[in-house]
Amino acid sequence: MHEYVNKREYKRESCQALDLADELAPLRDAFHLPEKVIYLDGNSLGARPKAALARAQEVVAQEWGQDLIRSWNKAGWFDLPARLGDKLAPLVGAKAGEIVVTDSTSINLFKVLAGALQMQANQAATANRLVIVTERSNFPTDIYMAEGLTAWLDRGYRLRLVDAPEELPAAIDKDVALVMLTHINYRTGYQHDMRATSALAHAQGALIVWDLAHSAGAVPVDLHADGADFAVGCTYKYLNGGPGAPAFAWIPGRHQETFRQPLSGWWGHATPFAMAPQFAPTAGIRRALCGTQPIASLALVECGLEVFARTSMQAIRAKSLALTDLFIALLESRCAGHPLNIVTPREHERRGSQVSVAHPHGYAVMQALIARGVIGDYREPEIMRFGFTPLYTRFVDVWDAVDILKDILDNKKYDVTEQRVAVT
Amino acid sequence: MHEYVNKREYKRESCQALDLADELAPLRDAFHLPEKVIYLDGNSLGARPKAALARAQEVVAQEWGQDLIRSWNKAGWFDLPARLGDKLAPLVGAKAGEIVVTDSTSINLFKVLAGALQMQANQAATANRLVIVTERSNFPTDIYMAEGLTAWLDRGYRLRLVDAPEELPAAIDKDVALVMLTHINYRTGYQHDMRATSALAHAQGALIVWDLAHSAGAVPVDLHADGADFAVGCTYKYLNGGPGAPAFAWIPGRHQETFRQPLSGWWGHATPFAMAPQFAPTAGIRRALCGTQPIASLALVECGLEVFARTSMQAIRAKSLALTDLFIALLESRCAGHPLNIVTPREHERRGSQVSVAHPHGYAVMQALIARGVIGDYREPEIMRFGFTPLYTRFVDVWDAVDILKDILDNKKYDVTEQRVAVT
Repeated sequence: MHEYVNKREYKRESCQALDLADELAPLRDAFHLPEKVIYLDGNSLGARPKAALARAQEVVAQEWGQDLIRSWNKAGWFDLPARLGDKLAPLVGAKAGEIVVTDSTSINLFKVLAGALQMQANQAATANRLVIVTERSNFPTDIYMAEGLTAWLDRGYRLRLVDAPEELPAAIDKDVALVMLTHINYRTGYQHDMRATSALAHAQGALIVWDLAHSAGAVPVDLHADGADFAVGCTYKYLNGGPGAPAFAWIPGRHQETFRQPLSGWWGHATPFAMAPQFAPTAGIRRALCGTQPIASLALVECGLEVFARTSMQAIRAKSLALTDLFIALLESRCAGHPLNIVTPREHERRGSQVSVAHPHGYAVMQALIARGVIGDYREPEIMRFGFTPLYTRFVDVWDAVDILKDILDNKKYDVTEQRVAVT
Repeated sequence: MHEYVNKREYKRESCQALDLADELAPLRDAFHLPEKVIYLDGNSLGARPKAALARAQEVVAQEWGQDLIRSWNKAGWFDLPARLGDKLAPLVGAKAGEIVVTDSTSINLFKVLAGALQMQANQAATANRLVIVTERSNFPTDIYMAEGLTAWLDRGYRLRLVDAPEELPAAIDKDVALVMLTHINYRTGYQHDMRATSALAHAQGALIVWDLAHSAGAVPVDLHADGADFAVGCTYKYLNGGPGAPAFAWIPGRHQETFRQPLSGWWGHATPFAMAPQFAPTAGIRRALCGTQPIASLALVECGLEVFARTSMQAIRAKSLALTDLFIALLESRCAGHPLNIVTPREHERRGSQVSVAHPHGYAVMQALIARGVIGDYREPEIMRFGFTPLYTRFVDVWDAVDILKDILDNKKYDVTEQRVAVT
């Protein structure tokens, strides 16, 4: 597909031809997409798999309404976090028994940060290390959770914030207990080199925690091969799990035995129904669990994962790059002359599955786009984000989105006085 | 209604008469209850409000599927934790702006324990207190969460476990920072005297945290009048919010300004969309929030709360006591001679909305009951639990349940060799 996107002279018909040749095109039918909408916000909330409606009815009407308490066993509710984790595992290079789908990304991050810090504190060589390295531009909640954890531990831990990825090699020194990075930046779409950065951390004796919120289902991730120590991620973006659907935590087999975390609720107990008055962590990945999970939301995660089982992350990545290449090329050729600044890397290896574009009136332009049915979103300062989900985004959608953007820009069809309302 | 339950000579017809006179009887129609089932496990998983099915469809088909990302504002997803909290508040004697529905009970307990300990540590008079008093028979996850928190804080905090409520006065001394109790015991149905115990804690300078898992929607609770400092609770039991539905946290207005908690995610930030790299807690109850919530599960909580808006906790309590009195009286009169030990207090003030009955073959007897459509549950050791939810349980259900139990016991229709499978 790449040959198309290097041309500057294509037309809408060229995009239609790309769609006809697209091996992922049939998967679009697995999703409900509203009429007259070009949805480029799957990086914030993935579209609904059609199967999710029937599944929701099944959970609510049959499993809850009809089978009631018996569904904890009969419908497998209790095993759902680990079962969904096993379905998610191949998408991020994890093994079976290494992922649970549970709680929120923030809470899972708290667990793995705490666990990783404790592992370092327990080893003579790293016991005195007090620095956590991260990026100032990391998704804020990741920084907030690290702040919360370290302030409460009160052992002198401190955050070292770098302003650019190039500063990481100098920042990761022998004082560093932990490196905490989001693999793909939510604002810019920049993708870290997981393998190189993990090696950098390990060379200094640090552990590394990766947040895959914008990676899982968006780009191929190979946690084991790339040397990650821990990971968390989100299921409601590219994985299409539903609004606020429970997140995931990955603890590789090699770390599971020594992993402990302070949110030690009964779902992580070795014998949760023995009702023993002392906590004893269960073996394996379930020790990352805490309390009872929101089953209606959790069950819907499976509908998104089932679509991924019909293709491969390699096929998804190829189309993702073709879509983002096309979008960038069309912006440059058709919207030339407008003050658009593409902040997402051109280099494929450094790019996620979104394109972020700064414009002095980014907020107003995005509102105008949304009013015309092109749904992206906006992040301060000035950045319009366009997410490209290969499972349901067509090449012709990219053409049409740029066409509408061009009209809005060429004819100044945006209202710079509009009041800002943000969404997650 | 009490006059009926003091009689030993009633019949099924007497129960039918009670149902005819029951002012809550019409509310049963708000719930889906399976045919040929007498559901006495609403203390574990409440029955489904009929409205929940349409609400689930609306959330999944319209809000997620059709409106997509716009629903964070348009459908009020972002405000849901506080809006549901305000609907729940009157049931527990809280004020508007004091409750959020969010995360799990275990995680909310972690937040309020951490916040309460920090408040004590910040005051000169209590800064050196290191003891948390609770009951050995507390629901285990509460103890596990306190263990997890205090082990990780590493400041010398220790748990002091009492074996009976009568030991509390002696156990709450000047070393105690915090008393953490579950208001109604999950196993026995024993109800603490919230007012007296809170006063006991305060007289010694301790703060008191109440877990309302088996209280909210089951008995009248008056958190302010009874002097509670913090509370958490569950929405999927008596509140009928759906399997694993998000729990709640109560922080009274008087404690909100000083309350801090370590799960400081972006939903608790003063300006969550400014994406500032430093955490600053928002004013009010939202500082108890952490990350993005599971909307499909969260939205269904409202369906349960809407049924409560049609009655009062006083009416619910009157019927609850009538149901449990009747059950106890029928057990004693019709199942006399069998080795049944009613462990739930006879005294109304000390009783929740369940009756727990020990039998040497409790597990096998409960399995036989379930096979006959009488759904209660079992807790080690030997205890059969029967929950009575006044919103949908009829007096005639109580009669029929005892009738079936009597047949099972009289004719030894239970299999003592059955393997045990536990459920939450």
